[in-house]
Amino acid sequence: MTDTDTLTGDPVVLGVVGGGQLGRMLAEAASPLGVEVLVLDPTPDCPAAAVARDQIVADFDDRDGVLELAERADVVTVEIELADPDLLAEVRAETDTPVHPDPESIRTTRDKLVEASSLADAGVPVPAFRSVDDESDLRDAVDDLGAPLMLKARRGGYDGRGNEVIESVAEAESAFGDLSGLVAEELIDFERELSVMGVRGADGIDAYPVVENVHEAEILRETIAPARAGDEVRERAAAVAREVLGALDGRGVFGIELFETGDGDVLVNEIAPRPHNSGHYTIEAAPTSQFEQHARATLGLPLGATALRGDAAMVNILGDVAEAGPVELAGVHDALARPGVHLHWYGKREARPLRKMGHLTATTADGVADPLAAARDARDDLTFE
Amino acid sequence: MTDTDTLTGDPVVLGVVGGGQLGRMLAEAASPLGVEVLVLDPTPDCPAAAVARDQIVADFDDRDGVLELAERADVVTVEIELADPDLLAEVRAETDTPVHPDPESIRTTRDKLVEASSLADAGVPVPAFRSVDDESDLRDAVDDLGAPLMLKARRGGYDGRGNEVIESVAEAESAFGDLSGLVAEELIDFERELSVMGVRGADGIDAYPVVENVHEAEILRETIAPARAGDEVRERAAAVAREVLGALDGRGVFGIELFETGDGDVLVNEIAPRPHNSGHYTIEAAPTSQFEQHARATLGLPLGATALRGDAAMVNILGDVAEAGPVELAGVHDALARPGVHLHWYGKREARPLRKMGHLTATTADGVADPLAAARDARDDLTFE
Repeated sequence: MTDTDTLTGDPVVLGVVGGGQLGRMLAEAASPLGVEVLVLDPTPDCPAAAVARDQIVADFDDRDGVLELAERADVVTVEIELADPDLLAEVRAETDTPVHPDPESIRTTRDKLVEASSLADAGVPVPAFRSVDDESDLRDAVDDLGAPLMLKARRGGYDGRGNEVIESVAEAESAFGDLSGLVAEELIDFERELSVMGVRGADGIDAYPVVENVHEAEILRETIAPARAGDEVRERAAAVAREVLGALDGRGVFGIELFETGDGDVLVNEIAPRPHNSGHYTIEAAPTSQFEQHARATLGLPLGATALRGDAAMVNILGDVAEAGPVELAGVHDALARPGVHLHWYGKREARPLRKMGHLTATTADGVADPLAAARDARDDLTFE
Repeated sequence: MTDTDTLTGDPVVLGVVGGGQLGRMLAEAASPLGVEVLVLDPTPDCPAAAVARDQIVADFDDRDGVLELAERADVVTVEIELADPDLLAEVRAETDTPVHPDPESIRTTRDKLVEASSLADAGVPVPAFRSVDDESDLRDAVDDLGAPLMLKARRGGYDGRGNEVIESVAEAESAFGDLSGLVAEELIDFERELSVMGVRGADGIDAYPVVENVHEAEILRETIAPARAGDEVRERAAAVAREVLGALDGRGVFGIELFETGDGDVLVNEIAPRPHNSGHYTIEAAPTSQFEQHARATLGLPLGATALRGDAAMVNILGDVAEAGPVELAGVHDALARPGVHLHWYGKREARPLRKMGHLTATTADGVADPLAAARDARDDLTFE
C-alpha cells in the first residue's frame, strides 16, 4: 500500500537493515499504523527481533539477505550507517522495492569527507575541513586549521569511535596508525551541542524543535528539549537543519547534529540518515515520535505533528561495566516508581562498557516539574551489578 | 524477574491468553519495559502475532497450549473473557507460574450472575437483578423489576451479543430460545455511560479518570475523557470503581463500566478483567497507557502515573461492510494528515459487520482544540470499500 491510502488485510511491511534499539523502537511505533517490521541483522535475537514480524539473520552487506529483505518488504529502510549503498541501489533496481532514504544519502553521510564536502557545496555551514591521506596532508591541515584539531576516520566511526582530538602528527599516528582515509576539521570551541530531527516526506519536509545534547567521551549522555539556547540561535539552527534536508535525497528521518559556537553561529557536525538517539525524547514528548515519523515518511504517508507536548529530557543508560559480560541491571523498581519517568530497555543480551543499553525520558506533559532531574534521578537508581 | 527489580539479558516474558488487538497493544507497550509478549490464540497470524515474540496456535481452553504458555512465560495474563479459569488455576499449580488477574476474578466476571451477586454482596451498587432459568423465573423477574427489562446471557456475551431489552416472555423466547442461563436486570434509564480503568498492583490500587462512553447497538463507538459529568458524579464513579477493585482478586487492569442514572447515582454495569476498549485513549493521553499499566501490574512492577496529559477522545473504526470479507480501508492519507490524530489499526485479516478493526484518538495534549471532532472527522475520512 506504499504511497496509496488503502489499508488491507495484507499488512504493509517495512524492511529494515539493522535490528538494534532503533529497529526495536521503529517496530513498536510502526505497529499502530498497521505496519509490520522485518529486520535484517547478523546477531540472532537482536533487540528488534522481539517486536519485529521476523528477522533475517545476515550481515548488513550480505547480498542474498538484503535481496530477501527487499523481496519481502514494501519499502526498505536502514537503522545503521553500516548499510551498503551500492548493494541497496542494486537490490532496489532488481526488485523495484523503494529504498528510503535514497542510497545516495547513505553514501554521502557514511563518509565524513563526502558529507562535509557536499554540505559545503550546498552552502550549508560546516567546520573548516581537509582531507587527510598521509603525513603531508596532516601537516598542511595543522597549518591551515590550527592545532589541536579534530581528526576523524572518514568511514565506520560512530559514537565517537574513530574521532580524536590531536595536537601533532605523532599523536595522530598513535591514535590512527595509518594516516589515510581521514578528515581533519577545525576544533570547534562550542557553546552547546544541538541537534534537530528533520524529516523528508513524500509531500515536503518538517523538523522537530532544536534540542541540546551533552556528550562525554563523544557518546551522547543527555538530551534536553527544547535546547536552552537563545531564540536567535534556535531559529538559526532550525534554518540550518532545513538547508541540510534540502541537500539530501529520499525520504525519512535524519538526525542532524550541530554546534552552537561561542559567537552564536551554527555549524553542522554530523548527519545520521535515520532516527537518532537525540530524538528518543519524541516518543513521549511529541504527538508523533521520530520512529512513527520515519515509518510515515518512508512509506509515503502524510507526516505527523512535531510540536512538543512539553519540555523533556532523555538520559541514556550506558553499560557501566568493566568488561563485556552478562547483563544485570538492579534498581528497576525504584526507577519505575518515579512518577512520569519512562523506561526504554533495549533487551540486549550482553553489557559492554558504555554500550547503549536503554534510556529514560521525562516530560512536563506528564506533570514532571523538572524532567532532567527526574530522568537523572531514575538513572541514579539503576546500577549494573 | 517478576516481582524482583533486576533486568537481565534473559528477557521477561508475559504470556497472554488471547492475541487480538488488546494483545497487540499490550505487546507494543510492554516492549519498552524490556518485556516480551507470548500469545496463545487459535487464529494463525492473529493481530498480536506481528509484535509478539511468538504465538502458540491453540484454542483458549486447550490444555497443552495453556500449559506451554505458562512454561515459557514468567507471568500469565488474559486479554479475553473466554479464558478458562479452571484450566488457568490448574496450570498455575502445575507450573508455579503466577496468573494475573487471579483466575477467581476471571471466574467472577465471566458470569454476569456471579459478577452481579458478588458485587452486591460486597456492597457495590448494581442494578437490581434476578437469575432466570425458566419461564417462571422470567415472569417473576418482570413482576419484580418491571418491563421492559434487560435480559443477558450469563456467559459468553461480549460487545452486546447476548444482551437484549425485552418486554415480554414471548420476546425473550424469540431472542434467546431456551430461557436458561440468563440474568434479568432492571433497565436503567441512564443519563450517561461511564467507565473507569482501574488497576490492582503488587503494592496497591489506582485508577484513571472517569470517562464517558457512547454505545450504539451495545457496541462502543466513542469515549470522551474525562467524562462530561458533574464533579459529584465523577467523584462517586471513582469511589465505586475503587470499591470494585477491592472486591476483586489478583493484579492487573480492570475495565469497570458504569451507569450514571438520572438522579446522579452510579451503578456498576459490567467488569472486564483486562484492558478495555474505553481505556485506549490512555495510550496518548496518559503518562502510562492502560497496556503498560497492565504489564507493570501483572509483573509486580510499580504502577505508573495515571493523571491525564490532556482531554481526549477515542472513536472506534468498526467494520462497515455488509458481510465478512477481505479488508479494504480507503482514505488513510486524509485521516493521517489531520494534525494530532492517532491511528491504531489492528491488522485483522478479515472485515465483518461492526467488527473492531481499529481506532482513532486525539488529545488536547497534542494541541488539538476539539479532540472528539478531530477523531470523528478522521473517522469520516475512512471508508470500507
